[in-house]
Parts: sequence; structure tokens; C-alpha cells
Amino acid sequence: MAAPEQVRRNVTPVRVVTVREGARGERADTLATEEPLEIRVQGPGQEAARVAVTMRTPGGDFELAAGFLFTEGLVQPGEVRRVAYCDDLDDEEQRYNVVTVTLTVPFDAERLHRNFFATSSCGVCGKASLDDITVRCPVVPIGFSVAADVVVELPDRLRAAQRVFDRTGGLHAAGLFTAAGEPISVREDVGRHNAVDKVIGEQLLAERLPLADMAMQVSGRVSFEIVQKAAVAGIPVLSAVGAPSSLAVDAGERLGVTVLGFVRDGRCNIYSHPGRVV
Amino acid sequence: MAAPEQVRRNVTPVRVVTVREGARGERADTLATEEPLEIRVQGPGQEAARVAVTMRTPGGDFELAAGFLFTEGLVQPGEVRRVAYCDDLDDEEQRYNVVTVTLTVPFDAERLHRNFFATSSCGVCGKASLDDITVRCPVVPIGFSVAADVVVELPDRLRAAQRVFDRTGGLHAAGLFTAAGEPISVREDVGRHNAVDKVIGEQLLAERLPLADMAMQVSGRVSFEIVQKAAVAGIPVLSAVGAPSSLAVDAGERLGVTVLGFVRDGRCNIYSHPGRVV
Repeated sequence: MAAPEQVRRNVTPVRVVTVREGARGERADTLATEEPLEIRVQGPGQEAARVAVTMRTPGGDFELAAGFLFTEGLVQPGEVRRVAYCDDLDDEEQRYNVVTVTLTVPFDAERLHRNFFATSSCGVCGKASLDDITVRCPVVPIGFSVAADVVVELPDRLRAAQRVFDRTGGLHAAGLFTAAGEPISVREDVGRHNAVDKVIGEQLLAERLPLADMAMQVSGRVSFEIVQKAAVAGIPVLSAVGAPSSLAVDAGERLGVTVLGFVRDGRCNIYSHPGRVV
Repeated sequence: MAAPEQVRRNVTPVRVVTVREGARGERADTLATEEPLEIRVQGPGQEAARVAVTMRTPGGDFELAAGFLFTEGLVQPGEVRRVAYCDDLDDEEQRYNVVTVTLTVPFDAERLHRNFFATSSCGVCGKASLDDITVRCPVVPIGFSVAADVVVELPDRLRAAQRVFDRTGGLHAAGLFTAAGEPISVREDVGRHNAVDKVIGEQLLAERLPLADMAMQVSGRVSFEIVQKAAVAGIPVLSAVGAPSSLAVDAGERLGVTVLGFVRDGRCNIYSHPGRVV
């Protein structure tokens, strides 16, 4: 379904001036790469519409584009025919920063307008009005459960799978795990929403949605939008190392997602639908 | 210039199920409040245009609206006549989630379109095309410097001023400091871009721009967009507890901002324009 993805560097070498106890030095360092990705969408015979730009870490670009469009309610599973870099760009440098998603169905410009310029990470949301914030999705069904002693291990398992973090100290991550705590997919990104969209997008492209028998572990905190993305993908359990926001817990209650926070040091807090943690 | 702001709760009480060494309990907990803020803009005699929605922590809403519009290049300093909640909304609950910024000049819808749906936190950016990412601003002049032993203290000084963090463990912060390390303004928010926009917006509303003699300290990491916001406000030194991204350092180089990362435990790394740290 997806064309082979260009392998891009996800770390960038730099020279850095260090200050240690008043002493100044200089050394080589490695940063997490951040570059813009423009996401375009087209139906059969349609011109590609520019939908959004995300600042992302290269790698998993097709998953990110597909996952973003899906979790923002712009595209449904099964509607993706092809994902490809935009090969008609003259600018060689930007070519791999533009991804076009071609659908099997006409792209509904009205749907784009309703959700227009979809979202954000922890802060500013590109949606133009309060009415645009909620993506419609069914309530996640009961029927999946995970043991508390498995959940409290997920942050360490996620961290163990983070390859770029070790080199840069600067990346968010999201991972999908089975009820036994086995990792299915782990993705890293400078943007925490992107990491979530990448793991969900990978499953969408592999036609494995909804993710009714998985728990998602995320680094950092949980916002409303992360909970909503999980719910759209049908993920019943969302676990975070950090704190949830008030609206994240509200959304968890409403959308049927079990939201856990402060999952660390063998402990956790359960903020919504605690029955799934046994 | 700004009407009195409605005092809203920035923390939300919840009941939480706790798991500690296998033992299940229940207790009261406090979460950082996250609610959407819709930002509208109008010039004299114009209808208000809906520009963006940000998921934010209530408090500093007028500063946030003004700061966002400014750092995204949509409004210039001196153009803000009035900031107010939208009092014509029937929905009492949403009334304090809509802010209208009235300008002294006509609002340029083209400018809105170019920058449309401006930005994001660490991840997804609402801008529709790669060309929209850069906000034009002058390079920040040389001429401000700060001692290394002041800089390495800034994270503790920021943290000491974070009132809501202590109650929730879940908030980003940004603070402006003088060269002597005196705090001028500290703001907290679930979104790190919002915290930055609030401190800059406060200074804009007080007509104290550009912030040529200040250092900004932020919690967490530094993205491209944080550096750009600092540059638009003329802030010469940007210091972060966490890592910068590759594009954050590029932007620092290009826009004349000194970017510091891993500022902790008496140490720091300087990634661009190191001459300002003496």
C-alpha cells in the first residue's frame, strides 16, 4: 500500500559549547532531527490538497501521514490507496518533506474544512473553532484487561526500545503493547502527537484496526488530544509516565478509554475506567 | 488595554484509583486544567474572524491570545486595542473559552490565510504548507550578555515560581529573567507554546517589546517554534532544561538567538551564538 520510504537521518550532528563548573569546552553532540512534513491528500482524479504541516523527526513519514489523517477524522481505515513522497518537487531538499496520501474515495473538502488544520501537541491547536475539536468516534468497548504489574513495567519497556533517545536525550515516544506487555510497535518523534500518530498509522497501513486488544504507553504527559487519538484507533488502555490534564481524564471517561498517569517506580494512578486494570 | 480577565480555576479536583505495590486504593487528586481557547480577531468595523483554538490552562487568556497572534506574525505590537471574552455567546460554559482581540488597524485576512491556523507545541503544526512555517522577523541584535553562573540557576528559579506544578506535577512553564537572574514574569500551561505566548503576550500588552535585555527559561525541550517565538519578541537568550531539536539550533543560528540546552546541575550546553554567555 505504501511505496518504500526514503531512509532519512533522525539524528543531526552539531558542535556544542559546554559549560561545566565554570569551565568552557567544546565537543561534538547529536540532536534529534526536526524537519517539517507537509501532508497532502487526494482522491481519484483530484488534485492534492494541502492539509497540514507537522514538525517531525524523519522516519515513519508514511505512517505519520496516514495516522494523522485517521486520528483527526479526515480519512477512514481502508480508504488509503497509496502513500508517497511528492516526486514533482524541484526542490531536492524539500522533496522528502512532502507526503501525498492517495485515497480510494474522493477526498471530502468539507470534511477537511470542518477539521481544518487539525491539531497540535501539548498546546496550540490549529482548529479554527471550538466545534472542530471533537473527532467523532465510537466509545471503546469493554472487554480488554491488563494486569497492574504489567502496566507498571510498560515505561521501562518503552524506554528500552527508544533508540534515538539514547543518542540525543530529546525524543518523545509511543508504543503499543499486548496484555502480556509484549511490544508490538514503538515510535519516536520530537512531537509526542507524532509518535502516537506513527504507531497508529503503522497499524492502519497494515489493516490491523481497531486496536481493541492493546495498551498504548506514552512518554511525558497526556493531553485531551492524545486520548482522542487513542479512542479513534479503538485503544482501550492509555498509560503515561507523566500527569494527565483535566480534559484528558474527561475524554477518557466519555470515550471509554482507561487513562493511567504517573506510571513509574512500580506505581500508577488510574483516572478513568479502572476496571480494565486487574 | 485589556478588560479585566475572568479568574478561572487552573486546577481540577478528581478522584483517582491508586496502585502501590499491588495494593489498590482511592484518593482525591488535583489535575492541571486543560480547556480549549478560541482566539478571534477583528479590526475596526470588521466581523471577528476565528483564527485558532488552543488547548490551554485557564489564566492569562488575554496574554495568551495577544502573544499567540504576535509570535505567529498575525498582529504587530501597538495594533491591539482591546482584548475581551466573547460576551455574546449563549453558552455560559464556553463564554470564557472565547477571546476576541480587537485591533486598531484592519485585520488582514490575507495575512491570516498565509499563516493560517498557526502552530503547535512539540508536534503537529497547523500550517498548511511548508512556505507558511517561517514568521518574518529581524535578527536579534548582539549586545546582551548573561553570566554562565546566572544561566545555570534559571531552571531552579523558574521551578520555584511554578505554583500550579506543585499541585499537579503536570505543567510546562516559561519565564523571563533579567541578566542578573531576577524573574520578570513566569507563566504555566499544559502547552509549552502557550506558556511562552503568555509571557510574551504580557509584555506586549504592557508595551515593553522588544525584550532585548532578557533571557527566557523554558521547562522541557526546545523546538523550532519556541526559538521562532523568542526571536519574534527579540529575546536574545533562550535556555531549556531539556534538549533542543536540530531545527531549533538552526533557527537560533539564523535568527540570532543564543540557544542553551540541558541547563541543569550547574551545567549547560550552548548550541548557537555562545558569545552572549560570559
